[in-house]
Amino acid sequence: MSDPDSPDSARRAFLRSIGALSAGTFLTAGSEDAQTKAADAREGLFDLGDFALRSGITLRAAKLAYKTHGRLNADKSNAILYPTPFPAHHGDIEWPIGPGRALDPDKYFIIVLDQLGNGLSASPSNTPAPYDRARFPIITIFDDVVAQRRLVTELFGLRKIALAVGWSMGAQQVYQWAVSHPEMVERIAPFCGTAKTTPHNAVFLEGVRAALTADGAWMDGDYQTPPVRGMRAFARVYAGWAFSQPFYKQELYRQLGFGSLPEFLTGFWEQRYARRDPNNLLSLLRTWQLNDVGAAPESGGTLARALGSIKARATVMAAETDLYFTPADIEAEAHLIPGARFRLIPTIWGHMAGAGLNPIDSQFIEAEIKALLAAPAWSASA
Amino acid sequence: MSDPDSPDSARRAFLRSIGALSAGTFLTAGSEDAQTKAADAREGLFDLGDFALRSGITLRAAKLAYKTHGRLNADKSNAILYPTPFPAHHGDIEWPIGPGRALDPDKYFIIVLDQLGNGLSASPSNTPAPYDRARFPIITIFDDVVAQRRLVTELFGLRKIALAVGWSMGAQQVYQWAVSHPEMVERIAPFCGTAKTTPHNAVFLEGVRAALTADGAWMDGDYQTPPVRGMRAFARVYAGWAFSQPFYKQELYRQLGFGSLPEFLTGFWEQRYARRDPNNLLSLLRTWQLNDVGAAPESGGTLARALGSIKARATVMAAETDLYFTPADIEAEAHLIPGARFRLIPTIWGHMAGAGLNPIDSQFIEAEIKALLAAPAWSASA
Repeated sequence: MSDPDSPDSARRAFLRSIGALSAGTFLTAGSEDAQTKAADAREGLFDLGDFALRSGITLRAAKLAYKTHGRLNADKSNAILYPTPFPAHHGDIEWPIGPGRALDPDKYFIIVLDQLGNGLSASPSNTPAPYDRARFPIITIFDDVVAQRRLVTELFGLRKIALAVGWSMGAQQVYQWAVSHPEMVERIAPFCGTAKTTPHNAVFLEGVRAALTADGAWMDGDYQTPPVRGMRAFARVYAGWAFSQPFYKQELYRQLGFGSLPEFLTGFWEQRYARRDPNNLLSLLRTWQLNDVGAAPESGGTLARALGSIKARATVMAAETDLYFTPADIEAEAHLIPGARFRLIPTIWGHMAGAGLNPIDSQFIEAEIKALLAAPAWSASA
Repeated sequence: MSDPDSPDSARRAFLRSIGALSAGTFLTAGSEDAQTKAADAREGLFDLGDFALRSGITLRAAKLAYKTHGRLNADKSNAILYPTPFPAHHGDIEWPIGPGRALDPDKYFIIVLDQLGNGLSASPSNTPAPYDRARFPIITIFDDVVAQRRLVTELFGLRKIALAVGWSMGAQQVYQWAVSHPEMVERIAPFCGTAKTTPHNAVFLEGVRAALTADGAWMDGDYQTPPVRGMRAFARVYAGWAFSQPFYKQELYRQLGFGSLPEFLTGFWEQRYARRDPNNLLSLLRTWQLNDVGAAPESGGTLARALGSIKARATVMAAETDLYFTPADIEAEAHLIPGARFRLIPTIWGHMAGAGLNPIDSQFIEAEIKALLAAPAWSASA
């Protein structure tokens, strides 16, 4: 196991965060990643068939990408779900996975689930007409969880989930899992995410959307050449939101190997999105903006009823300086979940405290996940 | 005097903030605004002649616009300087001016000074080649104060300034006044601004800049048709920064007469910049980004030395939820000013607490200004 405090480890974490260490290829159904050397890790593509979305539109021959780590035990009691955040692929968020880490493949069967629209699962970039590119239908977090549940039940025969864990938009999927399947999900650890997107968060996302689409080359999604200026603007705007004010003042980007602010804005931020398809990014943003775990009638119709119905033992974490998934918003929601434990990550890394880039924050988060896994299943208040 | 709590007053304050109540015309030298009905208010345009900038470039026949309220008394001891913030004209920030208000024209001679680049003073939009449009030279806050000092000494013969007061980038000019002319400025009341622009603040501004310039119609400043998409993106991104997260959650835009979030994003934010020239906006942003009151060798070369040299009695205010001129940054600077009083505006209006839109915040700010004007001149620690 590598020293998480080493500069080398920080550099690898950064490279992973921008996708430079992930395979980045679109897999065909049933294939396995030849580059995955770990004996117990495998990538795959689950066939959803004709998949009916909440919007009423049906995606033909829809696929759900995933990667597993470890082995499912005999009684299928050791499964962990770990859905991807914006705009990650399954290979980009492996920082807490490994022997001795919070998500230990020697003990658990970890399924990293690629969110619809992320470029590996069914997405604007890989869906044929009439739903290609900007014509790709609206995806809700609810749809993600419907698709993911089919995968884990049909492919792996799971009846219980020991833990659903996720960062940011990954946390949003975690909340939806606990609400949609309260009898199935034993524990949840959403961090730096809300069960319902706040208005300010949606405004922030409208800003990055407007920045990208201000580029005439964008052509309403039917671009012939990449909207380079728009993508750069997208990254520039995002840069201000994802880390905190003191992060920049203290020049903590130096810990990630960047010698100056301009180098950070280009080398980190522009690279972070350079490999992503613009239509995919905008599809994911829409999903994020629309997220409301209580929106479905069967979830109670309100946020309070939906969160109140959760049976999982919950540890909810927020980053102290997060500018869009604010601690106040996350804590207010945590109080609506029976018996939930709320923990504030003491950090000036802002939202990126959950990205696996800062070893101190990562250790805080992993310690909480380990403690949760060691605790009995189901709500602490039950 | 109107009731500042009335919806009508709030509506007028909003209209003023977007320039809808200002003349909005470019005045010729020496002219007075015929639309200014108040007996003691007059607009003017001061001729700076050939004006040498810190960059080494000289602007030919440069002008400085201004508006005065009230009358200069016999011993010239009642002058208040009130420089404009981004992207205001002198008519846009009159909310604290009036009989009984903090800046009372029955007692004081208030000079509202138009910042270089704002469209009324020398700006990209009104400067001939070779310094027209995006070729307009870099302006620093230092240049603004050099120009403003010439105006107040040459035109009005001022030797003392009873108070320099300003919001946001107006506050930056106030700091520079107190540092450049410590023997002249008796009191300062900068609010929601810093003496040195922080790195995060500069990143936020890079984001709005990138959003505007992502529009191909921008053509590096030589646009033939207005870069409408870029301007819209500029406004969208700005919207997330200028008000706080809870402002949006509590839908406080309803207090400004907007019935929904989309209506606010278009009716308030897009309108706020619709009358502004894009090159002017970007010139002002650059001035803001580069601001450092200690940068000039004669100011001591460091922020601490520059602020330590201030002799004015200072009341420094920050808005509790300001996302880019953060309370922590402002308070840290206030501690460097001898005897300064730091006051936190308890508000969820974010940076816009200082815009005169929310009567409670305005009353807080005005009470502090009144108390400062009632206190003896010069530093409380002297």
